[in-house]
Amino acid sequence: MGMYLAGVRIVLVNTSHPGNIGAAARAMKNMGLDQLALVNPAQFPHADATARASGADDLLANASVYPSLEQAIADCSVVYATSARCRSLPWPLVSPREAAKQIFQRQSAKTAIVFGNERSGLTNDELSVAQTHIHIPTAENFSSLNLAAAVQVIVYELFCAAQTATDQTSDQQESRELISSQQMQGLVKHFEAVMTQVDFLDPHHPKLLLKRLQRLLHRATLDTTELNIMRGLLSAVEYKLKKLSRSLTDKETQ
Amino acid sequence: MGMYLAGVRIVLVNTSHPGNIGAAARAMKNMGLDQLALVNPAQFPHADATARASGADDLLANASVYPSLEQAIADCSVVYATSARCRSLPWPLVSPREAAKQIFQRQSAKTAIVFGNERSGLTNDELSVAQTHIHIPTAENFSSLNLAAAVQVIVYELFCAAQTATDQTSDQQESRELISSQQMQGLVKHFEAVMTQVDFLDPHHPKLLLKRLQRLLHRATLDTTELNIMRGLLSAVEYKLKKLSRSLTDKETQ
Repeated sequence: MGMYLAGVRIVLVNTSHPGNIGAAARAMKNMGLDQLALVNPAQFPHADATARASGADDLLANASVYPSLEQAIADCSVVYATSARCRSLPWPLVSPREAAKQIFQRQSAKTAIVFGNERSGLTNDELSVAQTHIHIPTAENFSSLNLAAAVQVIVYELFCAAQTATDQTSDQQESRELISSQQMQGLVKHFEAVMTQVDFLDPHHPKLLLKRLQRLLHRATLDTTELNIMRGLLSAVEYKLKKLSRSLTDKETQ
Repeated sequence: MGMYLAGVRIVLVNTSHPGNIGAAARAMKNMGLDQLALVNPAQFPHADATARASGADDLLANASVYPSLEQAIADCSVVYATSARCRSLPWPLVSPREAAKQIFQRQSAKTAIVFGNERSGLTNDELSVAQTHIHIPTAENFSSLNLAAAVQVIVYELFCAAQTATDQTSDQQESRELISSQQMQGLVKHFEAVMTQVDFLDPHHPKLLLKRLQRLLHRATLDTTELNIMRGLLSAVEYKLKKLSRSLTDKETQ
């Protein structure tokens, strides 16, 4: 995974706010990327960039600054450009997820993903140096993403693509020992016994109530620890009832 | 799609930096969400929030501010909490993508997604009110996402899920009326009371037992009929215990 993401360069063109450069660096480092290129940043280095990088200072320190987009991507064989708007010139257009999949499939290729200025985006000339455009889906009436937020979405998709491909097998679930059908039946019987002892089970409709309880317990997919909690509680109720009843009988026979 | 995303509330707990509230509002509006809830924000309203909202001022103006997380999610039947760390107590944990899929499948349910403080995240108590935790995958050596960036990832996934699924027929789920977070807390309190009455609750470790019970109940996603069964059974146990105790006292005083 590291190798793959290490080949991807994030290129920020004409960025106005240094804070966005810092936030983009943080997003990149969070997702395992480290190649940041800046084309004509308005202010860089800058305290706002460092503050928002929040520990991703190394990416800022190692960032390459270029006077033109062409130079920033000169050694890349695959170039994507992010684009918010529909342009007059139709271009191959993919979603962030599709782009991440493509990049992963061509992981040996040096790849750049280009982001434009906060207000004006990329010019048509800049867009045309990319083979493919990426459009981040948004609500129609409010479509302008913050620059660092757009970087975050793209690098998150890259990380997900790398992850699903590398550790598909490793299941997150903790090793819960689920109970057997027999243990489940035992638990339901125990509930039935206690429900009867406390006059909760309606003798005219016992089945429906028990079925509902069973369905609920099935849905919870209990493990053995939880089974022990449930049975322990039911036993504690029975024990307490028995103790009180016995004391009562003792008093009566005194 | 609008209907679906309109049911999802983003809850920010103890947010330190008002700029993050603004950036989160912008991310939400970009992705078609509009329900923002704030629990004890350090500073709100604030000029930094408005600046970073960058046109999503309406979400800030309509944001609800609460003194506690419980109140912010009281009417929600489905609650997710974002979590960066591995906890001692395992909890159902899903990826942002899986969460978005789940939320879309239960789109009639009022849903909250909870985000903690920038530095400290959510406390264990806050995490335990959620049925499910969401972990945003990150690089191992730099895992702390900016708050607004985390919100961006989650709402982006919600938007993608809505987009890809709008043409699919909505889930076959029967029309179960799921219980609210408040009703769930009430049920746990009732269990706690009965557990104490029958000497089942270990006073030295009440939290772990209750947390395990809560996790089990969350996993079962109870509906109101099932809530009534559980509470009815607990009340029946309490009633029986009280009756026996009273009879015993009566005998003793005779």
